[in-house]
Amino acid sequence: MSNQGDRKIILGIAGLGTVGAGVVKIVEKHKALLAARAGCPIEIGAVSARDRSRDRGVDLSPYNWVDNPVDLASGGVNVVVELIGGSDGPALALAREALGKGIGFVTANKALIATHGKELAALAEKTGAPLKFEAAVAGGIPIIKALREGLAGNAISSVRGILNGTCNYILTRMEREGLAFDEVLKDAQALGYAEADPTFDIDGIDTAHKTAILAALAFGTEPDIENLPTEGIRNIAPVDIEYAKELGYRIKLLGVTQQTEEGIETRVHPAMVPTRSAIANVMDATNAVVVDGDAVGQTVYEGAGAGEGPTASAVLGDIVDVARGANGPRLGVPAEKLKASSPVPVAKHRGTYYIRLRVDDRPGVMADITAVLAEENVSIESMLQRGQAADGGVYIVLTTHETVEASVAATLDRFTKLECVLETPTMLRIEA
Amino acid sequence: MSNQGDRKIILGIAGLGTVGAGVVKIVEKHKALLAARAGCPIEIGAVSARDRSRDRGVDLSPYNWVDNPVDLASGGVNVVVELIGGSDGPALALAREALGKGIGFVTANKALIATHGKELAALAEKTGAPLKFEAAVAGGIPIIKALREGLAGNAISSVRGILNGTCNYILTRMEREGLAFDEVLKDAQALGYAEADPTFDIDGIDTAHKTAILAALAFGTEPDIENLPTEGIRNIAPVDIEYAKELGYRIKLLGVTQQTEEGIETRVHPAMVPTRSAIANVMDATNAVVVDGDAVGQTVYEGAGAGEGPTASAVLGDIVDVARGANGPRLGVPAEKLKASSPVPVAKHRGTYYIRLRVDDRPGVMADITAVLAEENVSIESMLQRGQAADGGVYIVLTTHETVEASVAATLDRFTKLECVLETPTMLRIEA
Repeated sequence: MSNQGDRKIILGIAGLGTVGAGVVKIVEKHKALLAARAGCPIEIGAVSARDRSRDRGVDLSPYNWVDNPVDLASGGVNVVVELIGGSDGPALALAREALGKGIGFVTANKALIATHGKELAALAEKTGAPLKFEAAVAGGIPIIKALREGLAGNAISSVRGILNGTCNYILTRMEREGLAFDEVLKDAQALGYAEADPTFDIDGIDTAHKTAILAALAFGTEPDIENLPTEGIRNIAPVDIEYAKELGYRIKLLGVTQQTEEGIETRVHPAMVPTRSAIANVMDATNAVVVDGDAVGQTVYEGAGAGEGPTASAVLGDIVDVARGANGPRLGVPAEKLKASSPVPVAKHRGTYYIRLRVDDRPGVMADITAVLAEENVSIESMLQRGQAADGGVYIVLTTHETVEASVAATLDRFTKLECVLETPTMLRIEA
Repeated sequence: MSNQGDRKIILGIAGLGTVGAGVVKIVEKHKALLAARAGCPIEIGAVSARDRSRDRGVDLSPYNWVDNPVDLASGGVNVVVELIGGSDGPALALAREALGKGIGFVTANKALIATHGKELAALAEKTGAPLKFEAAVAGGIPIIKALREGLAGNAISSVRGILNGTCNYILTRMEREGLAFDEVLKDAQALGYAEADPTFDIDGIDTAHKTAILAALAFGTEPDIENLPTEGIRNIAPVDIEYAKELGYRIKLLGVTQQTEEGIETRVHPAMVPTRSAIANVMDATNAVVVDGDAVGQTVYEGAGAGEGPTASAVLGDIVDVARGANGPRLGVPAEKLKASSPVPVAKHRGTYYIRLRVDDRPGVMADITAVLAEENVSIESMLQRGQAADGGVYIVLTTHETVEASVAATLDRFTKLECVLETPTMLRIEA
C-alpha cells in the first residue's frame, strides 16, 4: 500500500458509542497530521449505528449512514472499524464480510478476537486483508504491538496484566477507603466507572478475553477463552485487603499467561502482589502489563485502559499501520502455525498462597488446622491468629511456601468440613 | 516483502561487541521462532569486526567475514545491522552505502540517527530501503515503535525519559548509600556499569542523542543534536539529594521534549521529580519513558535500557519488522515533511526551580537574598535555612513558584556576585 500517489484510507465505522465518536473526532481534528504519518489521507466513508439521532458531540451528518453494518464492507471502504462489540452477531458477520473481501479490519472487540481470532486471522491471511486489534487490550497502551512486533526477538516467559480499569478502580477504593466491595461498586456505577450490569468486568470475563489474546501473541497459540480459569473480585473482603497490606501485598485482579515446566498456564484471578512491585502501584482505572522475555528481561507498560481517547488512540494507531502497509502475521505467527492451546490445569499451578479461615475460638483449633496442612503436604510460611472476627470466631491467616494448587484445593476442602471452621475459607494466589 | 515463498532475510552485521554477539545468539537460538514470526527465514550472511580472534561466546567461524564494513552492503545481504557506533566514520559510510542501494538498515546507533537522521531517512525513502533504529533509544523498550506507530493518532504534548542507565545507577546509589558522585562513579567503573571514559554518559550526551530522536518522532521535526541544551550529573551533590528527599523529590537525569506555548522545548538535565511519580521510582540501570498524547493521555514504558539482551531484542524486533514489510515513514513522517527544529531557548523555559546557596552565617544575608529574588520577580514557594555546611557557612535552600528561566539565570548571576554567597549556587529544575 505504499508509494501510490492517489491512494486513501476510506473508513467504514461500525458502532458510534463513545469510542466510535472518539475515532471520528481524531480523524477530523488531526487530518493533516494523520495524512503525514500514514503517508496518505484518512477519510470516513460511511458509518453505522443503531441510533442516528443521538448527540455524540460530533457532527455525523456529512457521512454516509448504512443501517446494516455488514454493508460497510463495500462502496469504496477499504478499512472497516468495528466498535460494535460482542463475540458473535453483527461484529462477527462484519469481520467475515470485510476480511473475506480483502478489506482491512480494525477492531476494539476483545470478545471477537478471543473467540474467533484464529478463524479471522486465517481468513485475513488468505485474502491479504489487514486485521488489527490494538484497542482490544489495555486501551491506549500499545501492548499488542509490543508483543507482536517490538519483542518479536524474544521467547516470552510470562505476561501479567491489570487489564480491567473498573476492577482496579474498585480495589483501589476498597483499599484507600476501607469500604466493602458492594459499596464501592454502587458508587462506581453512579460515577460511570462501572456498567449497570457489571458482570463482564467484576467477574473477570473482560480480563479473560484480553488475557486470551495476550497468551496467543506471547506463545503462538490459538486464542482460547473456553479453557481459561476465571475468577473475579466479587468475593474480595476488606479484611483480606487489610491482611494483604500487613503481609506486604496489595490485591489486584490479574490476567496471567506464563510458560511453566508443565506447559503454558493462563488464568485470571485476584492475586496478592508485593507492595513494592511495579504492578502493585498501578492504581485507580489505570492498566498495566508486565512482560518477561528471554532477551529483553522485564518491560512494563502503563496507561489508561479504557475510555474514548485512549481506545480511539489505539484504533488510530492500527489505521495508520494499515495505511503504511504493515501487514505481518495477524496473531504474531501465521494462523496455520498457531499451536493448539493446551493449557495447564490450574490444579497444577505451583505458587504460594494466602488462606484466611474464620474459626471457633477454642483450644485445639490450631492443631486441627495444622494437622490438615501437614497431611496435605502444604508448608506454612507464616501464620497469624487475630482477635475476634466481627461475625463471631477468630481469623486465622496463613501464607504457604511454594506448593501445587491441587494440594491447596484439597486442604481447603478439608478445612471446609472441619467443625471449627465457620465459613468457606478464602484463598488468594500470591504472585511474586 | 510478503508472500514470496523463497525470500529470506540475509543479515550483514557490522560490529561484534556485546550487542552484535547478542544478535548472533538470538538469530541462532530462535531460528524457528523468528522464521514463524517474520514469515521467512532470518540468516546471517556476513559479519565484520576489527578483531576476528576475540572470544565472543558464540562461534562466528561459519560466517563470511569482511574487513571493511561497507562491503557488507553487497553479496546478497538485504539487511545491514550496524552496531559500530559513532555519528560519522564507518557507520555513516555503511548507512549511506546500504540505504543508497535499497538495502535495509537496522542500527542501535543513536549518535548516527540524532546527527544524520534526516539525510538517511530521505535516502531510505528514495530507494525504498527500510531504516530502523529501535535499539538506539531505551534499549529493549519498544518506545520508538510506540511513538512512531502505536501513538500515531495523537498530537504528542511531551516525552520525558530516563534514558541512560549509567546515570540512573549512579544517582540511585548516591541516594541509597549517601555517597558522593566520584565515589559511586569509580565503583560503577569497577563493576562495568560505567565506561572507563564516562563522559558520554555522565555529561548527558548519550541522553541528548536519544532525546533528539524522541523529539523528532514526537513532533515531526528534524533530529537536532546541535541545539539541545545538555547538562549531566557531575555536579549533583549528596546534599542536594538529601534536600530533594526532604522536599518530596528525587533527582533523575531526564531527557525532555515538550510542546509549550513558545514552541518545542527539548533539553537534557538533572531534575527533581516528585517521589510519588512513576518516573521517580525507576531505579538502578532501568530506563523509562513517559509520553503524553492528546487522545491517549499518559502512557509509561519501562525496561532495561542497555546491555546485550535488551539491545539485541530491539535489533531483532526491527529485523522482524523489515521481514514483515513494515516500512512507513522512517522518522514518523516523510523526511521531506520534517519541520526544521526551532527549539525554544532554555531561557524561555517556564517551570519551578530548586536553588541551593552556601552563604555566610550573619545577619542581613537573608534580606540580601530575598531582595534579589524580589527584584528579578522570582516568587518563593519554600525557603529553608539549615545548620552549618561542612565547608563553612550555612545552606539556604529554596524552591520557586513557576517562573521563566531567564529570571532564574539572572537571579543566580546576581547571587554569585553577592559577597555573602560563598560558592556558585546550585540550581535544579523541578519537573511536575
